[in-house]
Amino acid sequence: MLPASAAIVEVGPRDGLQNEAASLGAPDKVRLIEALVAAGLGRIEIGSFVKREWIPQLADTDEVARRLPRAPGVTYSALVPNRHGLERALEAGLGEVAVFLSASETHNQKNANKSIDASLEVFADIVPAARARGVAVRGYLSTVWGCPYEGHVPPEQSLRISRALRNLGVGEISLGDTIGVGNPLQTRRILETFFAGGFQPRELALHMHDTHGMALANCLVGLEMGIATFDASVGGTGGCPYAPGAAGNLATEDLASMLQGMGIRTSIDLDKLLDAGRLAQELIGRRLPGRRLQAAIGAASRAMRSEAQTT
Amino acid sequence: MLPASAAIVEVGPRDGLQNEAASLGAPDKVRLIEALVAAGLGRIEIGSFVKREWIPQLADTDEVARRLPRAPGVTYSALVPNRHGLERALEAGLGEVAVFLSASETHNQKNANKSIDASLEVFADIVPAARARGVAVRGYLSTVWGCPYEGHVPPEQSLRISRALRNLGVGEISLGDTIGVGNPLQTRRILETFFAGGFQPRELALHMHDTHGMALANCLVGLEMGIATFDASVGGTGGCPYAPGAAGNLATEDLASMLQGMGIRTSIDLDKLLDAGRLAQELIGRRLPGRRLQAAIGAASRAMRSEAQTT
Repeated sequence: MLPASAAIVEVGPRDGLQNEAASLGAPDKVRLIEALVAAGLGRIEIGSFVKREWIPQLADTDEVARRLPRAPGVTYSALVPNRHGLERALEAGLGEVAVFLSASETHNQKNANKSIDASLEVFADIVPAARARGVAVRGYLSTVWGCPYEGHVPPEQSLRISRALRNLGVGEISLGDTIGVGNPLQTRRILETFFAGGFQPRELALHMHDTHGMALANCLVGLEMGIATFDASVGGTGGCPYAPGAAGNLATEDLASMLQGMGIRTSIDLDKLLDAGRLAQELIGRRLPGRRLQAAIGAASRAMRSEAQTT
Repeated sequence: MLPASAAIVEVGPRDGLQNEAASLGAPDKVRLIEALVAAGLGRIEIGSFVKREWIPQLADTDEVARRLPRAPGVTYSALVPNRHGLERALEAGLGEVAVFLSASETHNQKNANKSIDASLEVFADIVPAARARGVAVRGYLSTVWGCPYEGHVPPEQSLRISRALRNLGVGEISLGDTIGVGNPLQTRRILETFFAGGFQPRELALHMHDTHGMALANCLVGLEMGIATFDASVGGTGGCPYAPGAAGNLATEDLASMLQGMGIRTSIDLDKLLDAGRLAQELIGRRLPGRRLQAAIGAASRAMRSEAQTT
């Protein structure tokens, strides 16, 4: 039984750009985000309020937020690692913030520079503070399908951490296949663990990476099990930090195209989304990995060549 | 209920190479096929016995067949369009041949230069002739998920043609998503049509293209419905003839990796298959689209860089 409609959370301006070698200026980021809004995306992650020197590509998130036109029906969000980040997000007027940690201890240590328990302690402070200010809080849980340092991550460990997040007031937990190794059987088992552990499908989102080409197969399992929120990145921006040149984030066009083909309603206009993908490729200056985008670019170049032949 | 094991039909040396700009010489093709055999592939399509001028890349299929060492448990096959092609295949000593046609009239006209009925008439001659010589016959049915000229193709049309093929003695029909637009819901409906029409899962194979990134999601639906034979092309060689630069054939490594991750038995050694993918990329001289292959190449380059930093 498939859901009648599904939501896409666009993470390209944050998760995509932070893993690109090219660094876009705030005006270009705003152009890209505006193109995504025009394509119908209703939830867009625009950056991160971590220390500016940690992720130079996202150091201007405050400025991006200031320059963005508020659009009805569109929620902008950003990552916040701590109280200071939250204050910056609140000042920027974002409607949602996201906290993040990993399901594996080593990855959390390397990524957030603290233990999982220490991350949860920080969130115990900032999640209620955000909610008290009327701001929704999303939680990212990374390495649920596997850790580049520890390998297998038990689903029960992910469940335990997710429960802690929910207890703090996190309204939606995005389960992440950070290194893109998840397979459909594993996805089924992870979701079964979460549902048996008391989670409802609407409390969860899937954040799949396409590093091994399985992102859409994993999303399909999610859909079949009632998940209706999926993260994706325009053009598949982002790459895989553990394998330069490999694919990273699932491309928004690939996901939107599959949902549309399956008759699952979204807010997306696919043609305009492909326009946003072309813009992302132009701004970033490399051939992006999204399959649907490259098919559209290839079909257009073929049409131009055919025209050239017949005239 | 997933099958306990699945078979991969490697079509790279035929369907892959015929859509690559680079043309490999017979010795290089033999090297690649030997690498595929070493990786455990048991069914390999080595070329095509169509008129040499039609597909120059495959004009030396006779020579390739002659040079290939026969390997126990490995079946080599090739496309045959007519009686003359069949005679060449028999002379080359192949254990299997494949006939091909399209589910849409316009595509068959452009691809085979005759009507669907005229194709079936040719096959009525050569399929029994092949079988009389102890050679198995596979049938390719293209454009089942959509036609670049006609758009939607009714599954009933594909079923009707497939029945005709089966009646002629074709032992396995490979249903092809020639332009890579198929989505999982469509795959389910097509297979339901075939099963309701009297086909057994073991009589069918899926030949998915990854042009829109949905190949593995479609294979997953096939697996869940009992299909256990899938076509794939090493490295994702081939591209999409209708969209230059876009992905075409599903990459063998992507498929083998998903099957292995799901605990579905195959004859494949994934590491050796990735070696074959690296060789294909080297011989063809372009970055191949296979996701798993690029992840492996990226991970290796990262490991080399880390080593360089620590020494």
